[in-house]
Amino acid sequence: MSPTRPLARWSLSGRDSKFRQAALDRQAILTKPTGALGALEDVAVWLADIQQTNTPMASSASVIVFASDHPVSHLGVSAYPREVTPMMVINLATGGAAASVLARLNGATLYVVDVGAESYPPPESVPGIQWSRVDVGGTVGDLRDQDAMDAVALENALQAGADAVDALPEENKLLILGEMGIGNTTPAAAIAARLLQRSVDEMVGPGTGVEGEALLAKRELVSQALIRTQGTIEPQAVLRRLGGREIAAIVGAIGRAAERGMAILVDGFIVSSAALVAVRMDERLRDFLWFGHRSAEPGHAIILEALRASPLVDAGLRLGEGSGALTALPLIQAAVALHNEMATFEQASVPNRED
Amino acid sequence: MSPTRPLARWSLSGRDSKFRQAALDRQAILTKPTGALGALEDVAVWLADIQQTNTPMASSASVIVFASDHPVSHLGVSAYPREVTPMMVINLATGGAAASVLARLNGATLYVVDVGAESYPPPESVPGIQWSRVDVGGTVGDLRDQDAMDAVALENALQAGADAVDALPEENKLLILGEMGIGNTTPAAAIAARLLQRSVDEMVGPGTGVEGEALLAKRELVSQALIRTQGTIEPQAVLRRLGGREIAAIVGAIGRAAERGMAILVDGFIVSSAALVAVRMDERLRDFLWFGHRSAEPGHAIILEALRASPLVDAGLRLGEGSGALTALPLIQAAVALHNEMATFEQASVPNRED
Repeated sequence: MSPTRPLARWSLSGRDSKFRQAALDRQAILTKPTGALGALEDVAVWLADIQQTNTPMASSASVIVFASDHPVSHLGVSAYPREVTPMMVINLATGGAAASVLARLNGATLYVVDVGAESYPPPESVPGIQWSRVDVGGTVGDLRDQDAMDAVALENALQAGADAVDALPEENKLLILGEMGIGNTTPAAAIAARLLQRSVDEMVGPGTGVEGEALLAKRELVSQALIRTQGTIEPQAVLRRLGGREIAAIVGAIGRAAERGMAILVDGFIVSSAALVAVRMDERLRDFLWFGHRSAEPGHAIILEALRASPLVDAGLRLGEGSGALTALPLIQAAVALHNEMATFEQASVPNRED
Repeated sequence: MSPTRPLARWSLSGRDSKFRQAALDRQAILTKPTGALGALEDVAVWLADIQQTNTPMASSASVIVFASDHPVSHLGVSAYPREVTPMMVINLATGGAAASVLARLNGATLYVVDVGAESYPPPESVPGIQWSRVDVGGTVGDLRDQDAMDAVALENALQAGADAVDALPEENKLLILGEMGIGNTTPAAAIAARLLQRSVDEMVGPGTGVEGEALLAKRELVSQALIRTQGTIEPQAVLRRLGGREIAAIVGAIGRAAERGMAILVDGFIVSSAALVAVRMDERLRDFLWFGHRSAEPGHAIILEALRASPLVDAGLRLGEGSGALTALPLIQAAVALHNEMATFEQASVPNRED
């Protein structure tokens, strides 16, 4: 068990509260009863605050999908074989996966960042999608007998996440994070069970569709991993011992995006487990997050509750890849358009409430 | 009390089940676990069935907002004065209202059909928005002492709804219905209370934001209207006696859209009350409806449950105008894009489940 140094410490600048206040004031004079646009009003005010602007932006969004194999995929805990990870990376990169379709539909650039999938030939290039591969090195393990990552793999995975954000165009002020990796609801469940002190039965769900013996094996594996790492509660150490490379990369991306003043739209169970780690590492990061959807994976509700999150979409999705957040992206864009483009009572010569 | 003849009888052609089956078959071979896209899979299958096609369409959608004054607006049951109705009609028609912004954002043409607002000069014309006015004639009343409509007003309002659908471009296969009318949560609550045999307290909510005495007045008015019309249970008679012109127009539009084989995306409380009437008049119409969102208006949940509806968006909206359905439109478009554009397992050379 190697000691975990605190690697990630983020430099977050203070925000001027005037933008939040101006957004609240504007919402009160648009031609609608105050509050009648529900969460769309909250989203507009949140974006104005995070982006420090009077005209929040959501049209130029980026999607980063971090992908990796995980040694747990050898242990019969998933409905799909291990080889699906690199094949789905290629599918994502060449435009055929759900996240690829939704990114294209919403005019968002998709960045597929492989931080640990097994070997495959570089996919052909497709407009609107960028693929890259990072060798994070170090040693990775299957949770049962070995830590998920050694310090080298963790540090490099966190850095890969930050680097992916640094490579985004400067004008990007909204980031969607997704993941791909056969088996990775297993580490996500382990992380959440430890950080939230919840039982294995509560946190381990069907993922892509395991049931019967595979579901029992998944629960048994997470139980063993939690026993093996008993006493590890510091969030970065939990990430290193129970996580996975793509989850660590997402943690790194969240921190760097917050440093850049980007608003972050969180996907489902796995990205939320990374968000939980990030917020436990630095609670100021919570401000930068909005949760796109409520996944059908049962443990997601527990993470959402712990982070006091009310997702925009509740449509029973459980696919990952960022697909849930991408489904919610148009609601963010709607919130922005309404905030920036609706007429005020004065402009429309409409009297406000009688009282 | 004039007798209500059955006016609306819709001619719905049977649907070939092969399109629904083909859509189900396709969902099973797209590169995702079956069911992992949740309601978005259901939406794609629904559209394929209703539109009778293998490639469902949602890009060319139309929005019709029916607007009308209602005599109840003289009775202190709304947070806004009566004059707001024509002013908001102009705001809708000139692009400043929430529904105008959302229609523009989603590339949908907005039709504002005034079926009874008080006099105002025709608004200036704006690209992407069409305004029109229909005099439905007859007599209208305030629910308390008078029926909402006489037979003439009802017949003409139903017809105005059908005519508005007939005026849509032939290629339009997806229709969003909205409404505008100060006071019109009151008739909607009265309709739903009667058809669902629920109490006034359950069905009457704050609408645009009434509270205190105005809320009590609203409840008292609905109570009186229900007592006055006791025994009226035939849905078209309920619509005539307890409804309003814009609600009747929506009922007419639903029936005509179904005759045209259009898929219909329902907005919040008021449009749902019209949908309830339509389905009670002809239960086959239920197939043509998807519910866009769950409104913050408490009675909406009761109507949704009665119609076995699971809305796509639950964001606390309570504005009307079609804004809730318009917020959900991108999810319909996402469902269509995923269905039509995702790679199959074979195309992506990805193995399907191990079992």
